[in-house]
Amino acid sequence: MATKKYVYFFGGGKAEGTSEQKRLLGGKGAGLAQMTNIGLPVPPGFTLTTEACSEYYSKGRKWPVGLKKQVEANLAKLEKLTGKKLGDVDDPLLISVRSGAFVSMPGMMETILNLGMNDQSVEGLTARTGNARFAYDAYRRFIMMYASTAMGLSKDEFEGEFERFKHTVVAKRLGRRKGESVEDTDVTGEELKQLCEILKGKYEKMVGESFPQAPMDQLRGSIDAVFNSWMAEKAVTYRRVEKISESEVSGTGVNICTMVYGNKGETSGTGVAFTRDPNTGKNEFYGDYLFNAQGEDVVAGIRTPVRLTELQKQDKKVYEQLMAVRDKLERHYKDMQDLEFTVEEGTLYMLQTRRGKRAPVATFRIAVEMVDEGLITEEEAVCRITPDDIERLFYPAIDTKIAKKDLADATLTTGINAVPGAAAGDVFFTASAAEEAAATGRRVILVRKETSPEDVGGMHAARGILTQTGGKTSHAAVVARGWGKCCIVGCEALRIDYDKKRMTIDGVTIKEGESLTLDGNTGQVFKGDFPLVDPKLPKEFDRLMAWVDRLRTVKVRTNADTADDSKKAIEMGAEGIGLCRTEHMFFDTQDRIDAIREMIIADNCDDRIKALKKLLPYQRRDFEKIFKAMDGMPVNIRLIDPPLHEFVPHDKKGQKDLAKKIGIKYATVKNRVEQLHEFNPMLGHRGCRLAITFPEILDMQVRAIMEAACKVAQKGVKVYPEIMIPLTMAERELEILSDRVRKLATAILKEKKLTKRNVPYTVGTMIEIPRAALTADKIARHADFFSFGTNDLTQTTMGLSRDDAGRFLPDYVDEKKAGVFRSDPFQVLDQEGVGELVKIGIEKGRSVKPKLKIGICGEHGGELESVKFCVRAGMNYVSCSPYRVPIARLAAAQQAIEDK
Amino acid sequence: MATKKYVYFFGGGKAEGTSEQKRLLGGKGAGLAQMTNIGLPVPPGFTLTTEACSEYYSKGRKWPVGLKKQVEANLAKLEKLTGKKLGDVDDPLLISVRSGAFVSMPGMMETILNLGMNDQSVEGLTARTGNARFAYDAYRRFIMMYASTAMGLSKDEFEGEFERFKHTVVAKRLGRRKGESVEDTDVTGEELKQLCEILKGKYEKMVGESFPQAPMDQLRGSIDAVFNSWMAEKAVTYRRVEKISESEVSGTGVNICTMVYGNKGETSGTGVAFTRDPNTGKNEFYGDYLFNAQGEDVVAGIRTPVRLTELQKQDKKVYEQLMAVRDKLERHYKDMQDLEFTVEEGTLYMLQTRRGKRAPVATFRIAVEMVDEGLITEEEAVCRITPDDIERLFYPAIDTKIAKKDLADATLTTGINAVPGAAAGDVFFTASAAEEAAATGRRVILVRKETSPEDVGGMHAARGILTQTGGKTSHAAVVARGWGKCCIVGCEALRIDYDKKRMTIDGVTIKEGESLTLDGNTGQVFKGDFPLVDPKLPKEFDRLMAWVDRLRTVKVRTNADTADDSKKAIEMGAEGIGLCRTEHMFFDTQDRIDAIREMIIADNCDDRIKALKKLLPYQRRDFEKIFKAMDGMPVNIRLIDPPLHEFVPHDKKGQKDLAKKIGIKYATVKNRVEQLHEFNPMLGHRGCRLAITFPEILDMQVRAIMEAACKVAQKGVKVYPEIMIPLTMAERELEILSDRVRKLATAILKEKKLTKRNVPYTVGTMIEIPRAALTADKIARHADFFSFGTNDLTQTTMGLSRDDAGRFLPDYVDEKKAGVFRSDPFQVLDQEGVGELVKIGIEKGRSVKPKLKIGICGEHGGELESVKFCVRAGMNYVSCSPYRVPIARLAAAQQAIEDK
Repeated sequence: MATKKYVYFFGGGKAEGTSEQKRLLGGKGAGLAQMTNIGLPVPPGFTLTTEACSEYYSKGRKWPVGLKKQVEANLAKLEKLTGKKLGDVDDPLLISVRSGAFVSMPGMMETILNLGMNDQSVEGLTARTGNARFAYDAYRRFIMMYASTAMGLSKDEFEGEFERFKHTVVAKRLGRRKGESVEDTDVTGEELKQLCEILKGKYEKMVGESFPQAPMDQLRGSIDAVFNSWMAEKAVTYRRVEKISESEVSGTGVNICTMVYGNKGETSGTGVAFTRDPNTGKNEFYGDYLFNAQGEDVVAGIRTPVRLTELQKQDKKVYEQLMAVRDKLERHYKDMQDLEFTVEEGTLYMLQTRRGKRAPVATFRIAVEMVDEGLITEEEAVCRITPDDIERLFYPAIDTKIAKKDLADATLTTGINAVPGAAAGDVFFTASAAEEAAATGRRVILVRKETSPEDVGGMHAARGILTQTGGKTSHAAVVARGWGKCCIVGCEALRIDYDKKRMTIDGVTIKEGESLTLDGNTGQVFKGDFPLVDPKLPKEFDRLMAWVDRLRTVKVRTNADTADDSKKAIEMGAEGIGLCRTEHMFFDTQDRIDAIREMIIADNCDDRIKALKKLLPYQRRDFEKIFKAMDGMPVNIRLIDPPLHEFVPHDKKGQKDLAKKIGIKYATVKNRVEQLHEFNPMLGHRGCRLAITFPEILDMQVRAIMEAACKVAQKGVKVYPEIMIPLTMAERELEILSDRVRKLATAILKEKKLTKRNVPYTVGTMIEIPRAALTADKIARHADFFSFGTNDLTQTTMGLSRDDAGRFLPDYVDEKKAGVFRSDPFQVLDQEGVGELVKIGIEKGRSVKPKLKIGICGEHGGELESVKFCVRAGMNYVSCSPYRVPIARLAAAQQAIEDK
Repeated sequence: MATKKYVYFFGGGKAEGTSEQKRLLGGKGAGLAQMTNIGLPVPPGFTLTTEACSEYYSKGRKWPVGLKKQVEANLAKLEKLTGKKLGDVDDPLLISVRSGAFVSMPGMMETILNLGMNDQSVEGLTARTGNARFAYDAYRRFIMMYASTAMGLSKDEFEGEFERFKHTVVAKRLGRRKGESVEDTDVTGEELKQLCEILKGKYEKMVGESFPQAPMDQLRGSIDAVFNSWMAEKAVTYRRVEKISESEVSGTGVNICTMVYGNKGETSGTGVAFTRDPNTGKNEFYGDYLFNAQGEDVVAGIRTPVRLTELQKQDKKVYEQLMAVRDKLERHYKDMQDLEFTVEEGTLYMLQTRRGKRAPVATFRIAVEMVDEGLITEEEAVCRITPDDIERLFYPAIDTKIAKKDLADATLTTGINAVPGAAAGDVFFTASAAEEAAATGRRVILVRKETSPEDVGGMHAARGILTQTGGKTSHAAVVARGWGKCCIVGCEALRIDYDKKRMTIDGVTIKEGESLTLDGNTGQVFKGDFPLVDPKLPKEFDRLMAWVDRLRTVKVRTNADTADDSKKAIEMGAEGIGLCRTEHMFFDTQDRIDAIREMIIADNCDDRIKALKKLLPYQRRDFEKIFKAMDGMPVNIRLIDPPLHEFVPHDKKGQKDLAKKIGIKYATVKNRVEQLHEFNPMLGHRGCRLAITFPEILDMQVRAIMEAACKVAQKGVKVYPEIMIPLTMAERELEILSDRVRKLATAILKEKKLTKRNVPYTVGTMIEIPRAALTADKIARHADFFSFGTNDLTQTTMGLSRDDAGRFLPDYVDEKKAGVFRSDPFQVLDQEGVGELVKIGIEKGRSVKPKLKIGICGEHGGELESVKFCVRAGMNYVSCSPYRVPIARLAAAQQAIEDK
């Protein structure tokens, strides 16, 4: 039986693999194969497939049958091609061994260089190069790398031996005094030989076996080391953190490559380069070069490299070779590439190519310019942008000039990175303190155990928000995301003492008014006030987003509760409001919250109506402002949704104050608040259930909406109010309430001497309960539109409380633990379950009203995969927080391109 | 255009209507028509259809076009047939006017008799009968009835005039002293004439118009009165309470009938009868007869009627006539009938026939005996039984010998009648006090604000349970129903002071140890200890249920958590356990609850395992007992389901005690309990989510189940454990957990040297979250069975918390308010929404495993319509609490009959 092909050769101008085989060969292996194929100077070698690695694991860390033979055969082929032999005493072949998985994985094994060095071949290399220092330095490096990288011994132990050697033997020879430095280059060949003996001795002492002399043993040990590094804790952690599924990447490839040396004098050197500037995207060759050095020296930062322009000056020939390579690679890959190369005595060798990582700004510039250059199409450019690219364009960041060590020293803990960007300022623990401090011009960080609608004022005043509990869809996260405000949640190490106005993280105490810096990209919390840099939109952003808008087929709206949000959203490209929550307005001023509380505490309809009358002018004014801001665009307004207990004070003082204000007994207030308690508020008396019980609340809100609409319409503003009834679960609810809304709206239009032509309002409902989706054909009879509230729909469909899921959901999305879901279903729509109900709801709704307008207004409306799902499901629009609007536009375009 | 037919004539041996037209003619109208058609002596007349009434309302209380003409035409026909004329001065026709809807509705209008009486016709009647007293008495009665019934004037006012008249004018004539009684019969014709003038004067004074003399005005007024009574508050309330939908009964019929008189001497009389004994069901004519009296006299109870046997003695001819009528009616209606009749001077007239109401015992006897008599088939007998008939057979009731007044005086309030039956005993306010008192032999009533699993011991010890909060599916109701224990919940007037050990209802205080009686049928709460009578099953019950079992196609299991429950359920006909909840077992003794608390408070796996080891022997013993009790039948055991915070003490004392017992700090216990708090526990860390986080709990439970099964199997018991994993929402959860269960079960079988042949266990899951139903095809891959947990499925599908819905659900099921649902969806399965998911779940599950065993274990499994739905949906079995098993059997049989 023929065994599987586990090894792919490259060299002599052609390779067995191609760049298409990235999954099989790993990124590095595919790059080496492809570069060989397109005629670039790649040192010959061969790649062990990722499959070899996965079979190594499935066989309990044993090489699969046939692998050994194939390695030997390919090594023989390599020896034949190079005319050298591994371990040869005259002219030894030396090779490097590198890992390389399908996706780049920093946690994995570093390179082993100079494999093939042993007590014989070091002499051969000395003879061949006439340079004992070079040969023994190579041997010394190999022993140290093999010991640490392949055998997992402490690197510091071997480095320590080297240092000790330099400061004793070498320093003595040089007559240096204690404390004076000795450079690596001060060490002679003979001394390095002596050092190699010391290192081998240390190796033997630590391992219990002598340092392997047989090159095949060295190779086998190195390959095993690469295989084993795949399951090393840091690699596993990296995959988990980056949500790289084990089923997607089954193992690492192993690349064995002929050694080339950049440290053979001034005509040698080594470099890393990007085909374009990765920071700005500018179309110019960008990189660093180190004369007379090996690649690891560049990485180690032992000497300061020069810019490539310096190479151009000093070695024009090599530079031109490199420029030709650059062109060839960009023409082939049609993308900016990240290269590693070595020049050995004037000859260029390419060691690696891969897609170059780049700053968000550069992503846009490169994509747009490559379209201009005819390298890629507009569609391809659009498909290259990721949500992260967009998101990071808009947020401030901690100044990159700050030393990494300073940041590391200041790090307190890491929470959940709910909203990206960075924020620095002074800590306050209550919304009111935050507001007061902000009013005096201070930059404020609001720190809370958790946030609630009462905190919204303080949250708005703050630069950044930090909470102890909650996940990416907690109240804090959702509200902060709406404002694009840096937010870190679920910061479990945080302890807050509200009474003493201080917080503690792992023993470090920070008092009110002391400073803190948050990095919303990483979730890191730093003590102190670090400088931030503001974002700047590249001019290419607009061009690319214009292509996006031309390509997409669905509208993108925004979730916005104020005129300011609305304006911001229009800047971000929103084409309407998909969700205007009215309850936040109640917290805006003390008058308002007093009125709503009076309404709630009232025990009869008349008193409720009296209190509601106080609220009416406020809401009407808010709506007027929003309608003006959204002139000509639809504004979808959701009637009151949260349970009433969210609005009332739960502390004694607050209740006493309220009793005094309304002029009733404290006991009455206390009693009423207690009555409002719910076991499961998520499934309680809220949404349209409130409007059924207290229709006067709906009346006030509809009046505010319609009177505002009439007023602005009379001033020439084009206004399209969409009145949305939340939490419908049955046809009859919507029948009752939509009738009531329509009757009242008609009456108000008549009062104002206007018609529906002037104010073409519509009435519809949220679909956010499974039963609503299941009976959407009946509900649609009374609705002009549906808006899928996928936050609540996810909670009910999964039986999963967003506020409580923190206890087990992390395990559920952790592949190494339960691995039930690939992502947090509150961030990425659960297409299999919740999505199924969305599809049922759309199908049933349209079966009755084929032109029913349908959108989404949950958090998912700003997430790439979820938006794409919505497009496929046939929605007319998606809606998300202002800062996510460009992402939604992008997602919609990408799905439109896929659909072509 | 021909107008609709609004009026149906009957008389002269034939009728325009039939008994099939009950919906159109109302029950009474259809009965009169049918009796006429089958040749019974019915006084001729005509019926206005229920449609006439509903059109009267749709036209804003105006007669529909054509009605007047049809009434006039039918009246003319009646006058022709009888040879008399309404209002005639010589031989006046007198008629009665009665309401009669599709369903019997006690709240509606009473009868108006003697219509046609006026100042002329009273003379005519006097002349024709030669009896002025008779004529004026008829006139007097008509005036009083018309005034009160048609015009809504106070009946007492007119009765008062009559009394005053008797005690002044008549008493004076008779020379009676003050305080001595004057009978109606003491009043002479002349005096009655005088009285009529007084009454007419009073009428004119109160109405502002003179008493109508034109018979057509009288008729019109009376018909309007009947129509209007349809929307009178008491009728509307009655329909609401009885859940009679307005769409089902659109209005009342109006029956106009020639008057016949039972008060024309000793050869006249009037009676009511049942064709069989309504209390026992015995096949003998049963009823009361009043010589020389009108029907209203029977109702008013002025004189004591005699049994029909007396009539047989005194007027054999009439009695034989009646017997013939009885046979004819039973042969025609094939059911026990309730009759009203009048004998006028030896001639029998039938005034009404309808299905006779009967005691539950009688229902069974009549149904079974009618099968024996060949009147009906077994299927028809089965279809005649209602769930109420069964339910009431099993429960004690307050002794019917107790005077109604005594009960009324003792009534404190009325709560929600959660579980029928009655209970009397001494009040205790804590579970432990209840248990202690019961242990000394006292009959105990447990009164709580609400109950929790910790109260289960006290609930079991109590005869009856009364709670302030909660609905029919609250913890108290569900647990009590399981035991068939009288339970009243949602008793809002109740206030409990736990500290002072007393309760107050509307000002009446009852202290611990004082007595209370509960009527679970009505929800009434009585002060004092009333005697109860125990139920006795009629021998016909077993025969009928044997037909039921032969007819039905699905199995009926029970929800039972103990061996006692299991035994009870088998008595009730259960064929297995459909849901054995394991968590109640944890509360059984202090040792157990201590161990589970220790497990919960533990902060590491080892400590948890240690605590769980203490629980293992308890659970194993429980399962052994249950397996033995259910020998040969399947036992479905659900692994732990509730969130852990339900098990821990939330009060300081309890937490301190626990800390002491475990030997850790109070603060640690307090902290851990706080950590367990959830915002929405219903959607929180419970069900299989616990098993994912703490697999050691699952391990202990599976071990207890399997070791118990092995032990009893080795003793020759046939054991079929079904291990059920709750709250699955995703395939992967069940994959992980079912694998774990199967591996452990296999290992335990091996330990015990048994195989799956000895203990044929299966592993399956609850489907109780929408996502589970929607992805049932994937979940089914890992399941041997599905059990629909429709309690939770209702909560999640509707986004409706059972514990909080009390605030608005009453309005939702109230047709006069929101009318969103016909019934409480926690009692009657919401087929449109939840049922849709059940169907999807079954279809998807069976698409993968065509023979997948499927059942239901929610509260709905014991409700008629829900069980019928389950049968139609293709389930293999339903499961319900022991006392509901016969209802489920009945429902299953009725559906099987419908399917034929």
